[in-house]
Amino acid sequence: MTTGALIARLVAVVGPAHLLTDRADVAMRDHDGRGPAGRALALVRPGCTAEIARVMAIAADEGVRVVPQGARTGLVAGGAADDSGSMLLLSLERLTSPLAIDPVNRTARVGAGVTLSQLNAAAAEHGLFFPIDLGADPSVGGMIAANTGGARFLRYGDVRRNLLSIELVSGGADGEVRTLGRDCWKQNDGMDLKQLAIGTGGAMGIVTAATLTLQPRPAHAVTALLALTDAMAIDRLLVAFEHDWGMMLTAFEGMSPAAYEAALRHVPRLRRPFAADAGHRYFLLVELAAGAAFDGAMLEEALGTAIAPFMEGDAALVADVAVDRHDGLWALRHAIPEGLRASGSVIGCDVALRRGDVAAFRAAMTAEVLRDHPDLRVCDFGHVGDGGLHFNMLWPHEAGPIPPGLADALRMQVSATVVERHGGSFSAEHGVGPRNVAAYRRFTPSAVQRLAGHVQSLFAPVPIGRVAFGPAAEEETCPTN
Amino acid sequence: MTTGALIARLVAVVGPAHLLTDRADVAMRDHDGRGPAGRALALVRPGCTAEIARVMAIAADEGVRVVPQGARTGLVAGGAADDSGSMLLLSLERLTSPLAIDPVNRTARVGAGVTLSQLNAAAAEHGLFFPIDLGADPSVGGMIAANTGGARFLRYGDVRRNLLSIELVSGGADGEVRTLGRDCWKQNDGMDLKQLAIGTGGAMGIVTAATLTLQPRPAHAVTALLALTDAMAIDRLLVAFEHDWGMMLTAFEGMSPAAYEAALRHVPRLRRPFAADAGHRYFLLVELAAGAAFDGAMLEEALGTAIAPFMEGDAALVADVAVDRHDGLWALRHAIPEGLRASGSVIGCDVALRRGDVAAFRAAMTAEVLRDHPDLRVCDFGHVGDGGLHFNMLWPHEAGPIPPGLADALRMQVSATVVERHGGSFSAEHGVGPRNVAAYRRFTPSAVQRLAGHVQSLFAPVPIGRVAFGPAAEEETCPTN
Repeated sequence: MTTGALIARLVAVVGPAHLLTDRADVAMRDHDGRGPAGRALALVRPGCTAEIARVMAIAADEGVRVVPQGARTGLVAGGAADDSGSMLLLSLERLTSPLAIDPVNRTARVGAGVTLSQLNAAAAEHGLFFPIDLGADPSVGGMIAANTGGARFLRYGDVRRNLLSIELVSGGADGEVRTLGRDCWKQNDGMDLKQLAIGTGGAMGIVTAATLTLQPRPAHAVTALLALTDAMAIDRLLVAFEHDWGMMLTAFEGMSPAAYEAALRHVPRLRRPFAADAGHRYFLLVELAAGAAFDGAMLEEALGTAIAPFMEGDAALVADVAVDRHDGLWALRHAIPEGLRASGSVIGCDVALRRGDVAAFRAAMTAEVLRDHPDLRVCDFGHVGDGGLHFNMLWPHEAGPIPPGLADALRMQVSATVVERHGGSFSAEHGVGPRNVAAYRRFTPSAVQRLAGHVQSLFAPVPIGRVAFGPAAEEETCPTN
Repeated sequence: MTTGALIARLVAVVGPAHLLTDRADVAMRDHDGRGPAGRALALVRPGCTAEIARVMAIAADEGVRVVPQGARTGLVAGGAADDSGSMLLLSLERLTSPLAIDPVNRTARVGAGVTLSQLNAAAAEHGLFFPIDLGADPSVGGMIAANTGGARFLRYGDVRRNLLSIELVSGGADGEVRTLGRDCWKQNDGMDLKQLAIGTGGAMGIVTAATLTLQPRPAHAVTALLALTDAMAIDRLLVAFEHDWGMMLTAFEGMSPAAYEAALRHVPRLRRPFAADAGHRYFLLVELAAGAAFDGAMLEEALGTAIAPFMEGDAALVADVAVDRHDGLWALRHAIPEGLRASGSVIGCDVALRRGDVAAFRAAMTAEVLRDHPDLRVCDFGHVGDGGLHFNMLWPHEAGPIPPGLADALRMQVSATVVERHGGSFSAEHGVGPRNVAAYRRFTPSAVQRLAGHVQSLFAPVPIGRVAFGPAAEEETCPTN
């Protein structure tokens, strides 16, 4: 192919305003939530499913790899090009319709380019929300590609759990459009193929629209921040809260003292909940939510009653507690990433463990990395109620430049401990992309990779996106059916 | 092959006590929850995964189709043989270990032969339960094959939502054993291939063990039976209950007056909650559950307060209410199938609709079938809070023998209305098997069937079980990779 011919064919589909070829224009959009990435050939912004099917057919014909892109908030570089200069970014940002709420079914029919905040604004008119709670504002397509989790996974699950159907454009030369799934909550009528398009970064096709389930917005929510005397007490408090509150427990988040202090030190808008240097060993942010039949003040009082026994006596597990019926305590939790970035180079690990392994893992892993690298700080935090942990390490500004290769080596060391010693996962909620595909290759059994590679080539005979799920060495010989 | 050679090879693996060949012995086990089915060649009961792998390899070598079988409670004949006399039933009933509960992780590691009641007995020791609630006592393997739903789907979902990992024996001559998934709640680290083994009746391989998530057993539950003045009021009450109670609403079941009366008339142990012939148009069974921080009496009182406004004035939606903190009202709901069987021939349809379509569908569908068949009675009931409806029709004993072909024709007519007019599903919670595969063929787009057929042959190059998910005409030419 010649680039000129490709460009001309794409312009004929989307119009000149929606094909960016200027190097600077493209570079501004060739990144994700972790910063600059690759060097795409061009960026195309189709306006509808039919245009996407035509773009895919042209790209297949011209032998150009298409990389779908959402709102550029992903964390594994799945929506950015490599540095070959040969990939075509396909932005879904113009697919902002439909955006239709069915309030009785509690579903939203949305275009892939609708953002989480747009979806929630529309749902709020009916007292509903999409229960994926996170700091960024991703697009629906990006959330499906990453199978986004978030701070309320414990109660509402991830995107997978809240998705009923998708419209998928495959990468074949025919640009086939398939609907997978139905818009009713129960569908147990065949092989659930849509599952494969969730969390696979667009590799199975371009998701152009989806039907999502929504949840009733709780009328009341109460949040408590618990300062623990013992970081190993996470399990006992989790089990007790689930026993006492059942389905009303909507979040159970953990913060190391280092993560907590980084937020308070570097984010001036925050209020400090407790006196500094009180010797707190760990922090838990616990949220309860209830419907309109309840009274917020009553809920707050009952929460206090439930916590009190853990604050009594010499063996008290909870040293201090702050309670909030607004978002003040959540602001502290959500400010951690900003606090860490301001403190140095962040080496992020998005891992998942059995819930009962979290406390022991973080203690042992912290000791291990600090023994080898005394300049590091471990500033972990995360969704400990579901076993998800952002085991983030910080190379502080004051320690000078981070040694080359250290970040990748540490990430692999943490992943290996999680997977091989604990049977956990090296990716809890960010999905798989160029930034962590090395862990996928290492920790996924080769028979499973082979099967995944074959399945991928059935869905997308012409490869799409950044990740090949088959074994790397087999790529060339993998049948494309 | 010769049957004698096959038998000898199987006996060498499992021992003579675990291979049944006597026609009567086999026939006693060649059925599911709806009664007798086929005529299997033999029934083999391996005792462990290694034996299963060897059985699969022998069957592949001898050219015998294996049909996996659980506790024989399925409703689509997926675990019974056809009448060719050539299929081998593979019972998983001896796989009753492991049965290990991890109370902090809230998971159970279980063999495929563990039954729901055994699982719940073990979980109860830790204050936990597996939240698939139904009348029968299926095995874990059977529940995965059918993706069982049940009466608390609204809150806890189906088997799919409560499954973390499986051990799968493929049908290849090598009898490969694969582990798909990990035992932590969050795993977003590749293509989620285990999803394809859920609800596909064993077609992707034999599930020999699984890790399931458990839920805290609520300390308090209150049930209300509402007698409605208007069957179209389901939506308004559902939306109001979700707004008032949020995640505490654990069931929202519906019963037609005909289903309700059939249970009360034919099941003597039940107590009648309301005066007979009160003109009630529909019944809703609503359950609220709460943790130990609550008080059951307080919950009951709050429930009464929430219902009161719907009972006031000339436009009252609720004519009568009964409240219960034990299982009395649930007993009535669970007795419906028994009541229907005692009343005549049941023509069952397990359909799902958008929640807002349920009331209108049941009104129109009832009128349609009664117009054509005035002898029928429509006795529908189901999980209307999740859009699942057992649109069951009854050919009463007093109408004489049911006309040949009528049952199949009516089931297809109902399915067609659900799928084509409402975008719903012809199988809400029973999965796909010989009894409803005709609906699968008719209502699944052929491109999707083709893709499913190719995926099936990647997982199981030698076909397993009763359903081929590819298009029927293509079976012979379908590549088996």
